[in-house]
Amino acid sequence: MDLHDLTRELQIKNKSKIVLLVGDGLGGLPLTPGGKTELETANTPHLDALAKRGVQGGSIPVLPGIAPGSGPGHLGLFGYDPLKYIIGRGALEATGIGFELGPHDVAIRGNYCTLDKQGNISDRRAGRIPSEESAPLAKKLREVKIPGVEVFVEPVKEHRLVVVFRGEGLGGHVKDTDPQATGVPPLAPVAHDADDPASAKTAAIAAQFIAQADKILADQPKANGITLRGFSERPNLPSYEEVYGLRAAAIAVYPMYKGLARLVGMTLVGKAQTLSEQMDLLEQHWEDYDFFFIHYKYTDSTGEDGNFDAKVKKTEELDACVPRITALKPDVLIVTGDHSTPAFLKSHSWHPVPTLLVSDSCRTDGHTTFGENTCRTGGLGQFEAKYLMSLALANAGRLGKYGA
Amino acid sequence: MDLHDLTRELQIKNKSKIVLLVGDGLGGLPLTPGGKTELETANTPHLDALAKRGVQGGSIPVLPGIAPGSGPGHLGLFGYDPLKYIIGRGALEATGIGFELGPHDVAIRGNYCTLDKQGNISDRRAGRIPSEESAPLAKKLREVKIPGVEVFVEPVKEHRLVVVFRGEGLGGHVKDTDPQATGVPPLAPVAHDADDPASAKTAAIAAQFIAQADKILADQPKANGITLRGFSERPNLPSYEEVYGLRAAAIAVYPMYKGLARLVGMTLVGKAQTLSEQMDLLEQHWEDYDFFFIHYKYTDSTGEDGNFDAKVKKTEELDACVPRITALKPDVLIVTGDHSTPAFLKSHSWHPVPTLLVSDSCRTDGHTTFGENTCRTGGLGQFEAKYLMSLALANAGRLGKYGA
Repeated sequence: MDLHDLTRELQIKNKSKIVLLVGDGLGGLPLTPGGKTELETANTPHLDALAKRGVQGGSIPVLPGIAPGSGPGHLGLFGYDPLKYIIGRGALEATGIGFELGPHDVAIRGNYCTLDKQGNISDRRAGRIPSEESAPLAKKLREVKIPGVEVFVEPVKEHRLVVVFRGEGLGGHVKDTDPQATGVPPLAPVAHDADDPASAKTAAIAAQFIAQADKILADQPKANGITLRGFSERPNLPSYEEVYGLRAAAIAVYPMYKGLARLVGMTLVGKAQTLSEQMDLLEQHWEDYDFFFIHYKYTDSTGEDGNFDAKVKKTEELDACVPRITALKPDVLIVTGDHSTPAFLKSHSWHPVPTLLVSDSCRTDGHTTFGENTCRTGGLGQFEAKYLMSLALANAGRLGKYGA
Repeated sequence: MDLHDLTRELQIKNKSKIVLLVGDGLGGLPLTPGGKTELETANTPHLDALAKRGVQGGSIPVLPGIAPGSGPGHLGLFGYDPLKYIIGRGALEATGIGFELGPHDVAIRGNYCTLDKQGNISDRRAGRIPSEESAPLAKKLREVKIPGVEVFVEPVKEHRLVVVFRGEGLGGHVKDTDPQATGVPPLAPVAHDADDPASAKTAAIAAQFIAQADKILADQPKANGITLRGFSERPNLPSYEEVYGLRAAAIAVYPMYKGLARLVGMTLVGKAQTLSEQMDLLEQHWEDYDFFFIHYKYTDSTGEDGNFDAKVKKTEELDACVPRITALKPDVLIVTGDHSTPAFLKSHSWHPVPTLLVSDSCRTDGHTTFGENTCRTGGLGQFEAKYLMSLALANAGRLGKYGA
């Protein structure tokens, strides 16, 4: 019996509202040992006020020491064990550019590469061809026609593209054609497993795609070849409605987070470009949903840039939106991140993520500010992110008792 | 390898004594955020004295956010994963009224219902018939005779009863006959699975039981029919003797907790009606067992009533018994609950349960009182209840080293 079996069995419908406010990469590190983190440096009067009414702790995105990407980071927050639900690289790349995968799709990450006269790879990334030059190539590749299958080609940054095959009976277990080396030709696409006809079918289609693509690209100076990687079917995730009994809305700006929310059955609401517009949407749709996922990107991107001061500033901007949320009187408000992105490391990290949960029955922990150091001794302790949703449901009165 | 595999392999016999004192529903909540819980409000000089010698922490009964019933709550404390060992509803109901299930029994929860002239259910609970009226009906139903099987019928509160079939080759996987609706007839009992002859046999017996019961009840004004639910075999739990090497005694007042203790092979000691009588029994049987489970109900029942002050008082009564336990000089004394029952919520809850473990080798944590807030920063941290028994054994010197 796993956590979703429990929430399926125990879920109760009521009128409560749950808000999950995600500051991407929220957790940080001090620039010098013993100093303050970005969140602790930021002036966050509204989060501190929430801390007095709430309970905090450190969320472990996957397992101790494991820094997640956006996919597993968000799946964990959404309550889906990121070690059980694996989103293939192709599917994640498609999701990240806002491509809506269907149930019969196989998604693939492509790279433009440079082939020499013998057909060997001389540059695996086609000289990191600029996006302005690579985007028109994706359009050209849409000329590829393969009987019985619909082909989509979408540009991604620089030498990257996404290819999607849509058709009945396609399997996703196909080996990469990128040999991860130069001076050798690309590999032919083959199924991982000999007795997997669905993936063999995909491999045959991929071979046709590559042959036609090579012809179309033949005259290109740099990007005259293509490799395919990360073949993957649409991940089959149970929906929020089914596992939690929640009508869930996602209010996000970037395609990746919209895509991840869509994979778990959330409804994408509006087309906000700013946090203020996201708050507008929250207010407008407050009566329509039980659960709201609000995604804020800039605590992560400033961390990735290694810009401590900018991350502090973006954290303060996040803080400033809190009153508009609390004015709606959600029954449960959670503020957290999908992982830490310390400016000190300029990358996603494994550190527990500051997490704050506020509800009338949360058992406060006496803390009066919100930061990594207070989370360390907070009432939620350190916990795996995947348990956040059962805590949210319990605090919303949406879970019955397990067993008599 | 699970925890019981480890304790089976590593267990060591010695003369140590372990006492597990369970204040049912011990954990609580403040009535206002930032206030004191029931346990923190109570004057508990003896528990506080133990806190100075012990180590404390928060026990998570099942998983974060999951509030357990008494069954899973106690299984967790006894060291049995409550998500692995599921006690069927019929078996739990039988256990709760003190019916001693045998290895060949199938236990079922019954409801008296009201049938109209067409045989459709007009009231699924027979007008919530009072216990005084329903108890004699259970006795009448003992007239049911079915060849090859022994039938037991036991009254439960109001419209409820327990039916047990005892015989060789009976399976418990039979669907409920309660259609969970009125205006339709009860369903016929059928096995869940077509190729499960043992459960098919039980279903056939249940059909005979219902047919005879309907005749016996035909003249009743309200309770003229019966539905059967929660068919279940006796849960097959390994014993304390086997998994821990402990001769275990249970000193409980209420049938449910006696029954749960019996399921894990504890010996029921005496017929105490009060905590003082429980302490008498503990003293009298101190030399006869290695492990003593003492169950105290009233911290839960006052919480369920929503009576904060009464729960405080009952917590103080629990505290008052501590000197009689410590006078016996147990090697390990644990004080905990099977779950929280905050008066604020009037129900079992998911909050971590205050847990205190005292032994000479426990590594004290500097706390000088015992409550939810000190547990938050106690040396046991937050831990799943199922790990309490391995901690108890270790502190009693009853576990060898794992691996060389």
